[in-house]
Amino acid sequence: MEPHTFLLQLLIILVAARVVGELVATLGAPSVIGELLAGIIIGPSLLAWVEPNEPIRVLAEIGVILLLFEVGLETDMGKLLNVGRKATMVALGGFITPFLFGYGVTYFLFQQSMLVSLFVGGTLTATSIGITVRTLTDVHRQNSPEGQITLGAAVLDDLFGVILLAILYEFSMTGEINWINTFKVLAYISIFFLTAPVLAKLMSSVIGKLDKRIDNPGLIPVTIVSLVLFFAWLAHLFGAPELLGGFAAGLALSRRFFLPFGLTVKTDTAFARKIESQMKPIVQLFTPIFFVMIGLSLDLRQVDWGSWFFWGMSLTLAIVAIGSKFAGALLIAEPFPRRIVVGMAMVPRGEVGLIFAGLGSAAGVIRGDMYTSLIMVIAYTTLLSPFWIKLYYRRFGRFT
Amino acid sequence: MEPHTFLLQLLIILVAARVVGELVATLGAPSVIGELLAGIIIGPSLLAWVEPNEPIRVLAEIGVILLLFEVGLETDMGKLLNVGRKATMVALGGFITPFLFGYGVTYFLFQQSMLVSLFVGGTLTATSIGITVRTLTDVHRQNSPEGQITLGAAVLDDLFGVILLAILYEFSMTGEINWINTFKVLAYISIFFLTAPVLAKLMSSVIGKLDKRIDNPGLIPVTIVSLVLFFAWLAHLFGAPELLGGFAAGLALSRRFFLPFGLTVKTDTAFARKIESQMKPIVQLFTPIFFVMIGLSLDLRQVDWGSWFFWGMSLTLAIVAIGSKFAGALLIAEPFPRRIVVGMAMVPRGEVGLIFAGLGSAAGVIRGDMYTSLIMVIAYTTLLSPFWIKLYYRRFGRFT
Repeated sequence: MEPHTFLLQLLIILVAARVVGELVATLGAPSVIGELLAGIIIGPSLLAWVEPNEPIRVLAEIGVILLLFEVGLETDMGKLLNVGRKATMVALGGFITPFLFGYGVTYFLFQQSMLVSLFVGGTLTATSIGITVRTLTDVHRQNSPEGQITLGAAVLDDLFGVILLAILYEFSMTGEINWINTFKVLAYISIFFLTAPVLAKLMSSVIGKLDKRIDNPGLIPVTIVSLVLFFAWLAHLFGAPELLGGFAAGLALSRRFFLPFGLTVKTDTAFARKIESQMKPIVQLFTPIFFVMIGLSLDLRQVDWGSWFFWGMSLTLAIVAIGSKFAGALLIAEPFPRRIVVGMAMVPRGEVGLIFAGLGSAAGVIRGDMYTSLIMVIAYTTLLSPFWIKLYYRRFGRFT
Repeated sequence: MEPHTFLLQLLIILVAARVVGELVATLGAPSVIGELLAGIIIGPSLLAWVEPNEPIRVLAEIGVILLLFEVGLETDMGKLLNVGRKATMVALGGFITPFLFGYGVTYFLFQQSMLVSLFVGGTLTATSIGITVRTLTDVHRQNSPEGQITLGAAVLDDLFGVILLAILYEFSMTGEINWINTFKVLAYISIFFLTAPVLAKLMSSVIGKLDKRIDNPGLIPVTIVSLVLFFAWLAHLFGAPELLGGFAAGLALSRRFFLPFGLTVKTDTAFARKIESQMKPIVQLFTPIFFVMIGLSLDLRQVDWGSWFFWGMSLTLAIVAIGSKFAGALLIAEPFPRRIVVGMAMVPRGEVGLIFAGLGSAAGVIRGDMYTSLIMVIAYTTLLSPFWIKLYYRRFGRFT
């Protein structure tokens, strides 16, 4: 591909995201839906102006890593740890229930093989952390108690998902489950999350010192993006999703970071503010590419719209996918409206669901109508959830 | 390529550029040399950690377009037009002389075919506008009279280069020169440069109005980058180099833009300042990728270091390449030291030279030792010129 072809594609992505995002916002819906729709419109499903390709995929990946970095930067670690037990309950309930029901419906009702049913169950466990945090930011509720619980639950869900995916993939290849490997993955991920923020904090205070001494321009954008990329890569190395590396780096650089056991690394507030203001335009440039990419990846061309199996499967699974995500949320000790919002915020499957379905397809397990049904379920849940959340707040106000 | 592989490569590029850049700056040399060296070190020439690939090439291209955008943003159009005649003289002299001498030396002294000699001459006409403006910025002389003259001359040289390249390429394919096509290219490029800044100015005032009405975050980074990409793409469409599209957009958005014939589009200074502050981190993030990419592309692995032809050719051509670029500069009516600086600033061939040599290689004209000799000449001129300029200023002060 010639560079100018790519420039045009990037231009189309950025402009479409902005225009459809603004239109949708004018109609009262969250602008993230507009960005997802923009991807569906300009992508293979409709106009086919832009096909997902490698450079765009890479920019989208950087986009979601930077998004999670920014979320981490704005997160109050104390608050997040305070809601830890509730978030765990939401995550566990919203992971096990969709898995069991997704498996059960596919296996018993639609009479698919065990392996297919396992992958369908796995796909339904996903929570799109990207869509979830963006939706809550769109309605300015990312720092509310329900925002904190959802964020924590989505992070945990992403970790459970990675472990399940590793198990399923191995099972589909070898027919066995290696519990020692699973335990190793778990151990590595735990090590990563215990050490990464501390390491990131130490590295950031080195950057802060350099910032005082170096007058060559561009130190902060280059070093902070490098730091984020490093932790994303490190997360991958330890078996965790890359975007959680971005989140860990953001947490560490936030003004509200603290170390356990009363250990302290002084947070330089002026430096933290400088990071926030210089990183914001970069994050804002990259993140729309991520949401458009999800839309581009929801390839609806392959759907056989006349297939009874497709409609039956996708609608049944959609009901299961939506209902089962409330399982954990409804159990927590919070006012009822808050439980509802948390449940709704866990519904979108987004990019994580696409990874599950894509891997099932690559392993030759998920095919034809089964694959398009899953894509449709991902589309339903991803597009509807942000909409409900906005409507719900409008109807019931901002309960505290 | 998996996304995490690319994340690691981007990380290596950014960190290497910064570290080698700072080291070189500590030793008193311009940091751009460090970024070029970083590319040579991590690239195929030495460590081979990073091979040039498509996503990096695309990011590098965006980098140089954004760099030229920023240069345009900081350019005073009045000053640039005032030095127009001198810049034209520098550009013409620094274009025709290297072409004739490069051709002559290759044809008569080294007894190469006419086609080879034409391509060598063409490669020597190049001026790396990226290296030139970056070097002058490193020594804080981008707004000096010599800075303005060099900028204008480098822009013109880039235009002459595109036209010559089109002619040479056609000649190498068909054996003829189609003067009507050449005239068309010239006409299109002229139309682009007469209309693009006006169009960009009008579009930016629309963005300025939207900025007052829209409260969704991220308007400026997304729309301004889109604007820059649009003009880069448009420039390509009209047959001009993409980076000059970025330059035209920057000129139009600068606080010192004016229209001819006394027509006015009011410049909103607060908005212009907002653009500058939000675009700066983005530009600073992307531009090092461009300079590292030049280093990555200078693949010295293929050089046969024991070849007499290689040493004879590359050293002879280097002398021609350096000496001939002063031809135009020495003729202008400016103090002698300023003429010297302008001449030195025109020397680096950088990315433009690589395009010429690469096209000659793709056309099957430039091969083997001839190709590596040209690469070496590009390396000499690109790495030495920023160094001389800095030394010259240190020795002779900042003459005014």
